[in-house]
Amino acid sequence: MSRFLHSKFNALDPYDTSEELESMNGSYIRLNTNESPFAPSLKVMERAKEAAGTLNFYPDPDCTRLREKLADLMSVKPSEIVVGNGSDEILNFIFTAFCERGATFPDITYSFYKILAKFHGVDFITMPLDEDFRVSPDDYKNLNGRTIFIANPNAPTGIFLKLDDVERVVAHNPDSLVVIDEAYVDFGGESAKSLLNTHKNLIVVRTFSKSRSMAGGRLGWCMTCEELARDIRDIKNTFTPYNINAMTQAAGLATLEDEATTQANIKLIQTVREDVKLRLREIGFEVLDSSTNFLFARHRSLGGEKIFEALKRRGIMVRHFSSPQKISDFNRITIGTAEQMQRFLNTIREAVSE
Amino acid sequence: MSRFLHSKFNALDPYDTSEELESMNGSYIRLNTNESPFAPSLKVMERAKEAAGTLNFYPDPDCTRLREKLADLMSVKPSEIVVGNGSDEILNFIFTAFCERGATFPDITYSFYKILAKFHGVDFITMPLDEDFRVSPDDYKNLNGRTIFIANPNAPTGIFLKLDDVERVVAHNPDSLVVIDEAYVDFGGESAKSLLNTHKNLIVVRTFSKSRSMAGGRLGWCMTCEELARDIRDIKNTFTPYNINAMTQAAGLATLEDEATTQANIKLIQTVREDVKLRLREIGFEVLDSSTNFLFARHRSLGGEKIFEALKRRGIMVRHFSSPQKISDFNRITIGTAEQMQRFLNTIREAVSE
Repeated sequence: MSRFLHSKFNALDPYDTSEELESMNGSYIRLNTNESPFAPSLKVMERAKEAAGTLNFYPDPDCTRLREKLADLMSVKPSEIVVGNGSDEILNFIFTAFCERGATFPDITYSFYKILAKFHGVDFITMPLDEDFRVSPDDYKNLNGRTIFIANPNAPTGIFLKLDDVERVVAHNPDSLVVIDEAYVDFGGESAKSLLNTHKNLIVVRTFSKSRSMAGGRLGWCMTCEELARDIRDIKNTFTPYNINAMTQAAGLATLEDEATTQANIKLIQTVREDVKLRLREIGFEVLDSSTNFLFARHRSLGGEKIFEALKRRGIMVRHFSSPQKISDFNRITIGTAEQMQRFLNTIREAVSE
Repeated sequence: MSRFLHSKFNALDPYDTSEELESMNGSYIRLNTNESPFAPSLKVMERAKEAAGTLNFYPDPDCTRLREKLADLMSVKPSEIVVGNGSDEILNFIFTAFCERGATFPDITYSFYKILAKFHGVDFITMPLDEDFRVSPDDYKNLNGRTIFIANPNAPTGIFLKLDDVERVVAHNPDSLVVIDEAYVDFGGESAKSLLNTHKNLIVVRTFSKSRSMAGGRLGWCMTCEELARDIRDIKNTFTPYNINAMTQAAGLATLEDEATTQANIKLIQTVREDVKLRLREIGFEVLDSSTNFLFARHRSLGGEKIFEALKRRGIMVRHFSSPQKISDFNRITIGTAEQMQRFLNTIREAVSE
């Protein structure tokens, strides 16, 4: 670090993108970042091109049409929606705005919560998942106003917390803000959206990166009550008023106008996911039930890193977490196309019989 | 504000986009936001479309090809470049990373510096411009490590600080980081880039929003020594690893591959600017010499707000700053196409003879 860097960043812990870069640059089948295997439609491409044609003008800082369309689809008001440069930016707004009394999240969940908490100097505690890798809703009480982050379905486990349980967490913590990160909810489970009318301490975070095939577009958003939405919008307008470029706004809107394709893609992923789960179990894997576009699986005898390396040597990239130890025997496997997953199954059969 | 908002934000001062929104939604000739009047080329549009076709994949978090091309054009190393979601994001990285000992900038300059300083709780002092609205380089000394922000050419004045003077500021403040914000430098003046080899306390900030017709794409960047670039990149990777979407990366690269068009557009703007300046002087305006794509002008007898309103009523939006008082008689007028500026001149002649 340079002598000019703020002393609070002397132990900066940047998100490590090296493995993602490696998988992008190689000729791997990428089952490591939970991207959709389905490209956007021609209409999305045409709209992006059209938007590029007037790129000399600033984009709409309020994402008006996009928010109106989202509001329409979700049966909420546009004023209850804020849009971000990926849901990561929404999470950053939330950590910036609301975590004065600290934060809490499961010990095994999306790694970005911990990174953001450290970055913002937010005091945080983690709650262990139970022995079945489930979030224990009863752990989330007496939190003295800590903001609660729950990815639902959770990653990398893929497991869904029932809406009743989510509601208990929200209702039992009126002095805490509860953030339900629903990046994967389109693939299974039930949204906490229905709780927004009755609970004013809830933010539901969504992304276009998974079910909507737009990871490369950077588009996320959240739904919450008007008062919290106004706070988030004020934070956004203070340091990044024009956060969403015009092409992403246009591509996002076009994506929303073709809900049938999104729903068909989701069904395909779900079907392939259930098939791959059964096949993996047949060859000695324990596979957690998934409500997402990935599976979390460990072999009964072979270690997680060994399987990761064996797949990588054969041109398939999955995601392995070397820590914490209780998940180090697992790999997280994104569900690709039926063809990709057939090749994955052939390859992993070969790998485990080595 | 909600009861959950961090107490440090009880006097949040968001950037006000209402006037920009009004100008976007109306049928105004928009001479208020210093956008380029020239649309991107068909090639830029095609590249954006192509990038949209693989939007299901995450974008390159390192903007590798874009940084390589920029490095090539600027004769620096890719490792000396960091890319941001607009130069506003680069400025936010800098305020986040480097302003532990405070900041300083001219009293009349890009309004975002003050907004960011307040947002980050950075102690700041402002230095008055001299009576000719020029930055006084000798004011910038004994700063105890404050980070110095100088927009060069400055906005909204349009005036350029000579490279010798910039070098004096950089050389006389070895314990301060000096940020030269060159958003408008392609339209006039001289870049501080040439000082990068000899000074390791300098960051040069640039944008694609003005000369490169990409305000809607949100693309900015900076050049600095490798050590500072690494700090900024670490900050970026901590809270926004995928900050630049794939379409913007592609459009930016295509723009850089057509330097001839950019240079031709710049020449057109400069020619029209000089002509408009003379015409305005003919009808009683004082017009500061501009090294940018805008003019800063006040009428010898009519007030700035009156002129702003008279133009607005006639369908032309310029930018008026009601404070500070010493610029409240001015308007900032973006240079549009020759046709737009002819209409502007006809309109303003009508307005002043009312």
